[in-house]
Amino acid sequence: MKTGEFKILKKSSECSARTGKFKTVNGEINTPVFMPVGTQGSVKTISNLELQEMEAEVVLANAYHLYLRPGTETIESCGGIQKFIGWKGPMLTDSGGFQVFSLATLRRVEEDGVEFQSHIDGSKHFLGPEKSMEVQKKIGADIIMCFDECTPYPCTKEYAKRSMDLSVNWARRCKKKFEELDEGKQLLFGIIQGSVYPDLRRESAERTIDIGFPGYAIGGLAVGEPKEEMFKALETTTPILPEQKPRYSMGIGMPEDIWESVERGVDMFDCVLPTRNGRNGQAFTSSGRVNIKNAEFQKDFSPLDPECSCPTCKGYNRAYLNHLFRCQELLVLRLLTLHNLHFMIKLTKVIRKSIESDNFVESKKEFLSKYLK
Amino acid sequence: MKTGEFKILKKSSECSARTGKFKTVNGEINTPVFMPVGTQGSVKTISNLELQEMEAEVVLANAYHLYLRPGTETIESCGGIQKFIGWKGPMLTDSGGFQVFSLATLRRVEEDGVEFQSHIDGSKHFLGPEKSMEVQKKIGADIIMCFDECTPYPCTKEYAKRSMDLSVNWARRCKKKFEELDEGKQLLFGIIQGSVYPDLRRESAERTIDIGFPGYAIGGLAVGEPKEEMFKALETTTPILPEQKPRYSMGIGMPEDIWESVERGVDMFDCVLPTRNGRNGQAFTSSGRVNIKNAEFQKDFSPLDPECSCPTCKGYNRAYLNHLFRCQELLVLRLLTLHNLHFMIKLTKVIRKSIESDNFVESKKEFLSKYLK
Repeated sequence: MKTGEFKILKKSSECSARTGKFKTVNGEINTPVFMPVGTQGSVKTISNLELQEMEAEVVLANAYHLYLRPGTETIESCGGIQKFIGWKGPMLTDSGGFQVFSLATLRRVEEDGVEFQSHIDGSKHFLGPEKSMEVQKKIGADIIMCFDECTPYPCTKEYAKRSMDLSVNWARRCKKKFEELDEGKQLLFGIIQGSVYPDLRRESAERTIDIGFPGYAIGGLAVGEPKEEMFKALETTTPILPEQKPRYSMGIGMPEDIWESVERGVDMFDCVLPTRNGRNGQAFTSSGRVNIKNAEFQKDFSPLDPECSCPTCKGYNRAYLNHLFRCQELLVLRLLTLHNLHFMIKLTKVIRKSIESDNFVESKKEFLSKYLK
Repeated sequence: MKTGEFKILKKSSECSARTGKFKTVNGEINTPVFMPVGTQGSVKTISNLELQEMEAEVVLANAYHLYLRPGTETIESCGGIQKFIGWKGPMLTDSGGFQVFSLATLRRVEEDGVEFQSHIDGSKHFLGPEKSMEVQKKIGADIIMCFDECTPYPCTKEYAKRSMDLSVNWARRCKKKFEELDEGKQLLFGIIQGSVYPDLRRESAERTIDIGFPGYAIGGLAVGEPKEEMFKALETTTPILPEQKPRYSMGIGMPEDIWESVERGVDMFDCVLPTRNGRNGQAFTSSGRVNIKNAEFQKDFSPLDPECSCPTCKGYNRAYLNHLFRCQELLVLRLLTLHNLHFMIKLTKVIRKSIESDNFVESKKEFLSKYLK
């Protein structure tokens, strides 16, 4: 396989689900895939060895955060993000667009990009399509993303249209700059916007496909819209996207949503909830969500999820995890995060297997009947 | 070997250093040994698997903390502390005496023990020699400690004498209660007090030996006294202690102090500094102490300690660790703690080897010439 090639291995006869392999310089990614989020270059509380042991296929990082700290020059002089953080597999950086609009104080938004103040120290910076490509090139992840505006929800159709136009223009400029800088090691993905408006989603998809990318993300979802709107947007978009390119729905990642999205033809997922919820005491288990801080677990000496084989479930009991939370012991943050990530990755393996055996619909029903009981 | 037996394997011809093996129900402990501290039943940020991989021989916990949370009944109903926390090797609990006097609000100190208010919620409790034995029996560690008063520093000779008398009386009552409860699974250690007064240290040692224990701790050190006083107290005490019993200096654990203490005949150590300093950015390295937060490390891509083979030093660089601290990423707390514990355990292995090859003095000089450069 060549870098950037996406090979579909099996298609469901029941729905749009498919399994595949996507080739990057640092390794092949098996899809459907859940990608752990390491915003600042660290999947919170988790070591690289643990990511490797749970068979994480790709790790995410964020261009905005890494640009501010430690700075792209530091990462470049170390030889790239993988060398800097010590992770040997594929990586993906988000462009920083979402963070500029959501975390920073905006100074000026223009055709060229965005002038903003750092959320850390108020210092002034600029990011735009060209600058984001430079930054992501220096960071050096395998997959990088176009600089776009993640259209907020709710928003008027007028705003959504203007925002989508801007993102399409930026995508064209991103590709141009990317090609100038390209040394054949990175892959640039386009991002479809258009909010909850089907015609805008269609237009965004068509115009982004016209520019041409080795993979397409569906952005602006999981930002507060009702689930039906989210799935409708996927249903509108995925049939237009080229079959032979991977599809990545940004920010979607609750277990039940992953089943729904794969069913609609999505291949790649990321979500902060497995890590963030873990730090708040929330665990995903095969019989649904559990808050380990609840008093009912104080004398429950069974594993967090009896059907799980992660180090947390094999090595610790619920009463102890509850105790650690009550005592504010840091160990519990990593134990729950570790379990949640294991859970998500195991979930994608179950989904892949169900597609391979062309049993997706039944497997989905079986999973959800226990998980959402 | 029988439980409670201490076998001396090799004695230095140059000093009082010796290597040995101490047998507990849950395994043999090789001495000199550094014991990681897991006050609330968790060596802060570190998993059991990591403790096992670094070859930790014993893990400490604290009766005062575990009595308050999760409560001794919870631990007992789980089948003991090892089952509760998932650690399979030997464990030692401190009696809670030190914590009652240093953390809690004292209500009344009497011959029977201490009435105090919890440092967590102000609730009223009582600990004394008999109660501490009951608590430590239910917790179920392999080695348990007499309930004593850790004499503060500085203190008058009158206070030190009264305090030492109290601790000796309590030690006698601890042993009596221990024998009532004993099922042959636990070992009770006596504790020598006497502050910085050689005659009191001697008297405490003699009276405690008269009561008779399978091991003797030297308490009341590393509490603020000058280093010379600390070593003088060890020199006064260890020659009186029975050669065939392990000697444990409580709270001593800086790398340089371990060399000095082993030289004076001490076998067992514990100290919170490797864990606590790790969480503050301080690392022990073969060339001395390093504060990874310092700006000088921002672009230093070398390992934390080039001579170390721990997962932190094999998998990460200084610039990344510095970055994680600046970003307040939790991962760095475990990475530094892991390294520091590895460092301490490797140190005791180096010390054991130096005794085995009867090269202690030279090895100590070599280590300190680099470490204290």
